[in-house]
Amino acid sequence: MVSHVEIEQAAHTLRNVAHRTPLYHSSMFDRMTGNRVWFKAENVQRIGAFKFRGAYNLIASLSEEERRRGVIAHSSGNHAQGVALASKLLGVRAVVVMPEGSVASKVDAAREYGAEIVFCGENYDDRARVTSDLQAKHGYVLVHPFEDPRIIAGQGTVGLEVLQDLPELDYLIVPIGGGGLIAGCSIAAKHLSPSVKVIGVETEKANDAYQSFRAGRIVRIARADTIADGMRTLAVGTLNFEIMQKFVDDVVVVRDEDAIAMMRFFLERMKTVVEPTGAVAAAAISANRLGVSGKKICAVISGGNVDIHLLRTLLS
Amino acid sequence: MVSHVEIEQAAHTLRNVAHRTPLYHSSMFDRMTGNRVWFKAENVQRIGAFKFRGAYNLIASLSEEERRRGVIAHSSGNHAQGVALASKLLGVRAVVVMPEGSVASKVDAAREYGAEIVFCGENYDDRARVTSDLQAKHGYVLVHPFEDPRIIAGQGTVGLEVLQDLPELDYLIVPIGGGGLIAGCSIAAKHLSPSVKVIGVETEKANDAYQSFRAGRIVRIARADTIADGMRTLAVGTLNFEIMQKFVDDVVVVRDEDAIAMMRFFLERMKTVVEPTGAVAAAAISANRLGVSGKKICAVISGGNVDIHLLRTLLS
Repeated sequence: MVSHVEIEQAAHTLRNVAHRTPLYHSSMFDRMTGNRVWFKAENVQRIGAFKFRGAYNLIASLSEEERRRGVIAHSSGNHAQGVALASKLLGVRAVVVMPEGSVASKVDAAREYGAEIVFCGENYDDRARVTSDLQAKHGYVLVHPFEDPRIIAGQGTVGLEVLQDLPELDYLIVPIGGGGLIAGCSIAAKHLSPSVKVIGVETEKANDAYQSFRAGRIVRIARADTIADGMRTLAVGTLNFEIMQKFVDDVVVVRDEDAIAMMRFFLERMKTVVEPTGAVAAAAISANRLGVSGKKICAVISGGNVDIHLLRTLLS
Repeated sequence: MVSHVEIEQAAHTLRNVAHRTPLYHSSMFDRMTGNRVWFKAENVQRIGAFKFRGAYNLIASLSEEERRRGVIAHSSGNHAQGVALASKLLGVRAVVVMPEGSVASKVDAAREYGAEIVFCGENYDDRARVTSDLQAKHGYVLVHPFEDPRIIAGQGTVGLEVLQDLPELDYLIVPIGGGGLIAGCSIAAKHLSPSVKVIGVETEKANDAYQSFRAGRIVRIARADTIADGMRTLAVGTLNFEIMQKFVDDVVVVRDEDAIAMMRFFLERMKTVVEPTGAVAAAAISANRLGVSGKKICAVISGGNVDIHLLRTLLS
């Protein structure tokens, strides 16, 4: 398990390194939804997503000997950039395994931060295999994208900051990929305010956590062809699920279209660029999946790294 | 003339009504340009642009009798929305004259705020004629887009906030359309910090203020076919020019392409939506039109109301 103490330690580790991201607000969104809503803007976090927090917290915890060995991670997106930047700041060598079809701008960003890129096949199993081969051969330390107490504690600082800034909050809404963000956030939130409800959100096409939450065991789905690329993991982590069962109040789903409409609202009305996965939590409010009004709600914008070509398509 | 006292009074009038907008920062932009740069984010001001400040300050100053008559303004963009929202908040009837070809989203926004829309022909003279006809017929009070001390004082609160937040600033960079923003900002900035340099920026295709500043008299250009639609005024106002001559240190120009490249940087790297005009001041830094390094610089992002179709085109 992970406790709030580890999240507070992570906050200390991240002080002056990660941004304390702002809370955005839109009077129009409040009027449209009948609630008082804030958005935790992790799209303006370093590397453009919350993933930097966990990666830095984990790599900062390594021993001198582990740091000398270097780290390895696999990711097609934000985790790659998080590991790359954290490693650079901490002076650790980083290898990132990315699928061949990765978006060029994401590959470039990881490379800019000094990571060594190794390409692999498209599917998750291939990625994991290439990673563990390299790990075995070179002795790199694995930085898992979600299934690690130090990752969970790092991501949990998002929830810590929200409840510090908004102690009277009724609902905290968090997107679920592998479950690292919601696990950490729920621990921090319930510690600071036992009455706050923590709600996870997925898209319908990637509803493994939704199914798992209802079944009371981890359900693995066969595919996740959702626009929300941060939700394409097929099952949440074991540790993450344990925490979710204890601290998360519900998991709801939205359609891909709801997430896209929310992205457009963020762009047109709030002038902020949000990636599809980053719009999913807010979409649960705009699509009225909570069925509440008059509440104080914070939705986490998990990231803003949307490829400019995808953005163009979505604006059509 | 307008003095800093009127700008401080405007700040008082706008307290709890206009947003005190944040200063954005990008370490990457600092590295790229060799300066320490902040961006004053008026794209997240109410109505998505600084224009709300001046409009509200003017309409709030009207007598009971004038308020009963209602106000009129002509604009194809942000000024229309500013007048519409300010009027709504102050309980004043507003008529906005807009060219027939105005962007639908801008017309809708002004209408949403409760303004009555009157359409007119495309050119500036036609707009002005329709406006003065209606004004004469109905006794409306004109809210000029830039040539009025109360407008200038309202827009000047942008500069006031910047110098309050950044007292050590070396350069304040401001886009020029009709000159209301730079006139107000230069008065406030020089009052709070006589050593700060205030630099105006236009696009090459709308360089009337650039020419005027060099000629020492107002130069009117024949056309202004620039992507920066907030700069399509053909000459700055008389009062605005007087103030510019006293308080502005230089006027420089950038190409439309520089503004578009800057918009893309804002979108991709800083996750913020900026309209072409709003990117022009920052573009003067990225295109190295100042020729300085190691300086503390603030560029004003004047607005973020870019039409989604235009945005799509610009991303191609």
